[in-house]
Amino acid sequence: MRLLERFQGSEFRLTRVETFSDGVFAIVVTLLVLELQVPTLKDPHSAAELARQLLQQLPKFLSWLISFIIVCKFWISHHQLLELARHADHGMMWLNSLFLMSQAFVPFPTALLGRDYDNPLAVSFFGVALAVSTLLFIALQAYVTRWLLKPEIAQTPDLHRVLKPVLGPLAYLAGAVTAWISIEAAFALYLLAPLFFIVPRPRVR
Amino acid sequence: MRLLERFQGSEFRLTRVETFSDGVFAIVVTLLVLELQVPTLKDPHSAAELARQLLQQLPKFLSWLISFIIVCKFWISHHQLLELARHADHGMMWLNSLFLMSQAFVPFPTALLGRDYDNPLAVSFFGVALAVSTLLFIALQAYVTRWLLKPEIAQTPDLHRVLKPVLGPLAYLAGAVTAWISIEAAFALYLLAPLFFIVPRPRVR
Amino acid sequence: MRLLERFQGSEFRLTRVETFSDGVFAIVVTLLVLELQVPTLKDPHSAAELARQLLQQLPKFLSWLISFIIVCKFWISHHQLLELARHADHGMMWLNSLFLMSQAFVPFPTALLGRDYDNPLAVSFFGVALAVSTLLFIALQAYVTRWLLKPEIAQTPDLHRVLKPVLGPLAYLAGAVTAWISIEAAFALYLLAPLFFIVPRPRVR
Amino acid sequence: MRLLERFQGSEFRLTRVETFSDGVFAIVVTLLVLELQVPTLKDPHSAAELARQLLQQLPKFLSWLISFIIVCKFWISHHQLLELARHADHGMMWLNSLFLMSQAFVPFPTALLGRDYDNPLAVSFFGVALAVSTLLFIALQAYVTRWLLKPEIAQTPDLHRVLKPVLGPLAYLAGAVTAWISIEAAFALYLLAPLFFIVPRPRVR
Repeated sequence: MRLLERFQGSEFRLTRVETFSDGVFAIVVTLLVLELQVPTLKDPHSAAELARQLLQQLPKFLSWLISFIIVCKFWISHHQLLELARHADHGMMWLNSLFLMSQAFVPFPTALLGRDYDNPLAVSFFGVALAVSTLLFIALQAYVTRWLLKPEIAQTPDLHRVLKPVLGPLAYLAGAVTAWISIEAAFALYLLAPLFFIVPRPRVR
Repeated sequence: MRLLERFQGSEFRLTRVETFSDGVFAIVVTLLVLELQVPTLKDPHSAAELARQLLQQLPKFLSWLISFIIVCKFWISHHQLLELARHADHGMMWLNSLFLMSQAFVPFPTALLGRDYDNPLAVSFFGVALAVSTLLFIALQAYVTRWLLKPEIAQTPDLHRVLKPVLGPLAYLAGAVTAWISIEAAFALYLLAPLFFIVPRPRVR
Repeated sequence: MRLLERFQGSEFRLTRVETFSDGVFAIVVTLLVLELQVPTLKDPHSAAELARQLLQQLPKFLSWLISFIIVCKFWISHHQLLELARHADHGMMWLNSLFLMSQAFVPFPTALLGRDYDNPLAVSFFGVALAVSTLLFIALQAYVTRWLLKPEIAQTPDLHRVLKPVLGPLAYLAGAVTAWISIEAAFALYLLAPLFFIVPRPRVR
Repeated sequence: MRLLERFQGSEFRLTRVETFSDGVFAIVVTLLVLELQVPTLKDPHSAAELARQLLQQLPKFLSWLISFIIVCKFWISHHQLLELARHADHGMMWLNSLFLMSQAFVPFPTALLGRDYDNPLAVSFFGVALAVSTLLFIALQAYVTRWLLKPEIAQTPDLHRVLKPVLGPLAYLAGAVTAWISIEAAFALYLLAPLFFIVPRPRVR
């Protein structure tokens, strides 16, 4: 436990952890748009050709939409989690950095999903990347609730209700497996997973 | 109404909503410049050739300018709106995320407008994208004024004066329709719409 | 003056103006690096070839350095200016947005300067763009010191000492003109101008 | 000393220095992902080909990982350092800007490392760039501890324990030299250096 003690040896204000994290979330979410490409037209005046080309990019638009919603969901959960902490420490800052690393990675599997949407590995890779990110979030959550909880919250009996359930990564892993059987089903899972989590659990009293 | 209650089940500080939103706005506005491309010259020393090439990019500069002003206008309205709220809740955070998604999308229609400026679909697409974004903002505004208003503001008789009028999206939709008749007129509408809104409505007393 | 009154009709907290501006400055300064390109080598193992290619990119490194320092200088001046204001209003927010627009534009003339460094128009364009940006900053400064000054500061006799002098844009314009005679001299001017301003003027008592 | 006095002539709030720095750190860390490229497949449906192509990008993933951890480490040290300061001044803001410049540069050596991983100059360049950045951080740290320390902290006997040791740059320089003998050993050094620093030094009492 000597090592753990070192990681908990200093207290940091949460403000900068929030600014840094919000910065990463905001950039990830905005960089996603760079993957959408303006088509090069043979006849620049042809509305029909442009419409055809835009329609062909539909999988890119769809994977942009899915990733945007997923990252926003993570941002909201992150926000909710940090409200519970009384301060940050070294251990929390590193777990947070690892989690943000997995979020900053999201544009890559998103681009893969949008471009090679009919390649099972690409579709599966997306699910694995997000499952890993969810696991890292759960690790961060476990650390915060175990060591950094505000005293007044530590005693709430309904605390577990605001926490992200361990069920989360399973949805993405299910998508990653399904991709090898049906790509459409995997897409549906990726889209439904965050939508399911959007509805907040009932209020903590 | 059970579902709505769940979305309103927890209170969040507004600070992080602001940081995240400001981050997205700032990145969108700055990413726009990536669409401006340094021309490749046959004769690198020729000032005349560079001048010609820069002039050819005029539509790109123009669409960069239009989008920059539009996004800034949205940022100011967003700022103004959040000043009215006493806190954030789940429902507000999701409406805000959807609105930010539509803002983060702006670089794509801007690039389209700058590159295929003589294609009616490209010009029309820009108007539709911004009309959708304005509608999402109005939805966010309706939610905030209905559920999250600060008590002292709720009673201001002039409240409606600081709110974005439902007229907003019509200007962009008008541009989207006009594009099929005259591209120049559509450009003018896109440029005039935000300029018109720049002049603030009279003071709330 | 009715129009001016409207622009001054509402008070805003300065916090979000700062977050948004800091975001734009931070992104501009970081995007500049995207212009530096990893060379494609014929012999990937050859250190000599890589060294030669990196040396050829020297003008890009130099223009990256110049722009980085210039934008940081603007950021510091902006910071210093906002410390004087008691709050923000509509007029200030629009002048600030226009100024940020000119800052967000900086990566384009920087790329031009780095790639077409022996084209007088490219070198001159850089100077004009920065002169315009400085003028917009001076406009913002005039507005803030005229309408939004904190009461305790308004009476400082040394106030003018912390303000950016109108001399600023002249340095960049001088560079823009010099570019047509000697490119080296213009580069030197661009590099020296901010270095000159880095040394702060004596303390306000 | 007249010059130094001028640089210390005005006090700034630390908030904006933090927001600006956090912005730069967040963007650097997120831009790194742009270097990971979606492979173009001959057979878009072939999972085997995609797997092969992704494996070939392993050095890119590795250098992305290394840089991400290094920049996060710098962010944490920066956070820790600014907690010690009572305010900012001109001199500190310029040293901070120079340090941020070296951080904003990181995506370039990272891209070089990921693409030309078997070129000793590329691997060595990465180490030199990070050694310079560490030196700039040490300069900033020296300035803050010499001139801007909070009075209550100035007397802590264990102060040196939270400071980044001058040993830091040596690890990167060692990597830069090793690169000419064994590229694998250099990679290992770059990866181990930050991992070593991740374990915080014992608590200051």
